[in-house]
Amino acid sequence: MSVRPFLLPFCGVGDEKVGVGRGVIEYFFVISWIMFDKDYFSDIIEKAVAEIDYGPGPRGLFQPVEYTLEGGGKRLRPLLLLATCDALGGDALKAVNQAVGIEMFHNFTLLHDDVMDKAEVRRGRPTVHRRWNESVAILSGDAMLTLATMLVVKDTGRDGADCMAQILDLFNTTAMEVYGGQQLDMEYETRRAVTVEEYIEMIRLKTSVLLACACKMGAMMARATAEDAAAMYRYGELLGLAFQLQDDNLDTYGDPALFGKEIGGDIINEKKTWLWINALNREPKRLQRVLDQKLTDYLKIREIRKIYDDLNLRDEAQALIERYAAEAVEAIAGVKMSPEAREFFTSLALKSAARNH
Amino acid sequence: MSVRPFLLPFCGVGDEKVGVGRGVIEYFFVISWIMFDKDYFSDIIEKAVAEIDYGPGPRGLFQPVEYTLEGGGKRLRPLLLLATCDALGGDALKAVNQAVGIEMFHNFTLLHDDVMDKAEVRRGRPTVHRRWNESVAILSGDAMLTLATMLVVKDTGRDGADCMAQILDLFNTTAMEVYGGQQLDMEYETRRAVTVEEYIEMIRLKTSVLLACACKMGAMMARATAEDAAAMYRYGELLGLAFQLQDDNLDTYGDPALFGKEIGGDIINEKKTWLWINALNREPKRLQRVLDQKLTDYLKIREIRKIYDDLNLRDEAQALIERYAAEAVEAIAGVKMSPEAREFFTSLALKSAARNH
Repeated sequence: MSVRPFLLPFCGVGDEKVGVGRGVIEYFFVISWIMFDKDYFSDIIEKAVAEIDYGPGPRGLFQPVEYTLEGGGKRLRPLLLLATCDALGGDALKAVNQAVGIEMFHNFTLLHDDVMDKAEVRRGRPTVHRRWNESVAILSGDAMLTLATMLVVKDTGRDGADCMAQILDLFNTTAMEVYGGQQLDMEYETRRAVTVEEYIEMIRLKTSVLLACACKMGAMMARATAEDAAAMYRYGELLGLAFQLQDDNLDTYGDPALFGKEIGGDIINEKKTWLWINALNREPKRLQRVLDQKLTDYLKIREIRKIYDDLNLRDEAQALIERYAAEAVEAIAGVKMSPEAREFFTSLALKSAARNH
Repeated sequence: MSVRPFLLPFCGVGDEKVGVGRGVIEYFFVISWIMFDKDYFSDIIEKAVAEIDYGPGPRGLFQPVEYTLEGGGKRLRPLLLLATCDALGGDALKAVNQAVGIEMFHNFTLLHDDVMDKAEVRRGRPTVHRRWNESVAILSGDAMLTLATMLVVKDTGRDGADCMAQILDLFNTTAMEVYGGQQLDMEYETRRAVTVEEYIEMIRLKTSVLLACACKMGAMMARATAEDAAAMYRYGELLGLAFQLQDDNLDTYGDPALFGKEIGGDIINEKKTWLWINALNREPKRLQRVLDQKLTDYLKIREIRKIYDDLNLRDEAQALIERYAAEAVEAIAGVKMSPEAREFFTSLALKSAARNH
């Protein structure tokens, strides 16, 4: 159980140009005795996202931003940020701007990635460049990156100057790593051979470091020690690897009804995933023979999956995912937190490894 | 004359992830007694741009960034930043990261604007999305925005925490305004009527505020008073209006050999410039008759220019430009600076109003 006292200095939030509205604070004052609970954090996040004050500027610039954020998604990054802040003794309500900032950044990368990939659908709705046009998608994405930067440095506390510089540095460094990951992802599309290590490093950059950044920023907002912040970063990094590898697995083996998108897209596009790279390494000729046949999508998926199955790659991938999840839990073994908080992080890692959607 | 002593603490630059190299400092130590001189600042800027340390990350991400920055341009924004810093008693060498950061941001907006406009050529060379592809242009632009943010907050001084927060706030606010200006520019393309005031506000946002931001940031790095910083901001804002309106004039009346691009592009595209809006306001039927004729580009330019000439719009625009330039000079009348520095800012404003390229 944790008590969240009503703090007057925090009332200032919402007065400035960009930030979450005052209403968020008033609303959550009402529920100030709460168990360490995913739903509690999720409610804070949803309300904060809905109440973002975009400041001045033409409405047309912000409509695609709202549209993107309204699309939902797992809100995994802000959840990690608030949960870490709370678990490490901070007040999660004081880290809401940072949580929304990280979610804003994540959605900015999705928006621009969708333009690059010419994707038509995101979270069951037309992508921004389809709903509006490409220029709108590029410009609104740029605005989201700046808004994200404004949010993560907002109200970092009364001893905030140093904390702000550290948070900004973490955020910018992470952003550069995410771009680097996207760049490698694009380069690997046309490169003939990609090693398993290169693939893992690419998904670490493209996916993991932002989860790690969310955890570490939550720790920083809680004024945790550098050791605890580093441990939380490592947790996020390993969770991200488990999460992304599971995502790859689901793309090949998932239930389309649960996974929410068509199965086999990676195989059709011959994407160099962990499964593909391992199949190529172990059965290069057999894989090439399937590709040479120029099969229909349905048959191509079936034949490639046969190779994966014969090599037992699905189980091998699952074992790797579970190892990453276990290592994530292990990474924070030395971080002091309540049993409820530890249960939350443990369960999140194990569920990510076992999820079917 | 100003003396720039060699300061040991500044040697630290270049050790961190992103920033200008140590060589810049060593090089300019050699020329430490210099008149207030455009060439002095330009040399600093060119050398600093050439020596940017991009830190880790795949080379493919940074090649388009270097290509863009190597393209040259007037370097007006970093020049304004360094000159303001020096004029207000600061050490321009200590504001090099900020100057390069603002130039980086400017080039990021050009890069993404070129994708939005599907422009083929920039500064006489293929645009990034033509030389590489659109995905590369979008992603490298994103990286430039984050790099710009990293640069403007870098080494803001030993009393830097507060200064850093203020600089970041100025930078982010300006960025949002620039996006707002670009959004309005796009909206005005399809809107039937745009007023002169709306047009001026659009170019203020799209062009002026970044020049103003450069001036103010230079003043902040010099630890100038808030009044002087505000006056320099106003100077940059008015200079920007004069500059952009002159740019519009040159698009219609310039000498292609001097201006560096084809003349009449705005007329062919029926862009709602100051000239166009005024012609439409005063001679709507005559303008419409020309458009209804579906003339060749050459004849269209000739006929529209005839309307402008009959209405004496060129001279009227020129008078407005000169008024903005004079107001820019007036805006900094109360700011204490050396006669050489004042001459620099005065001459820059008057030359911008009179330039033919």
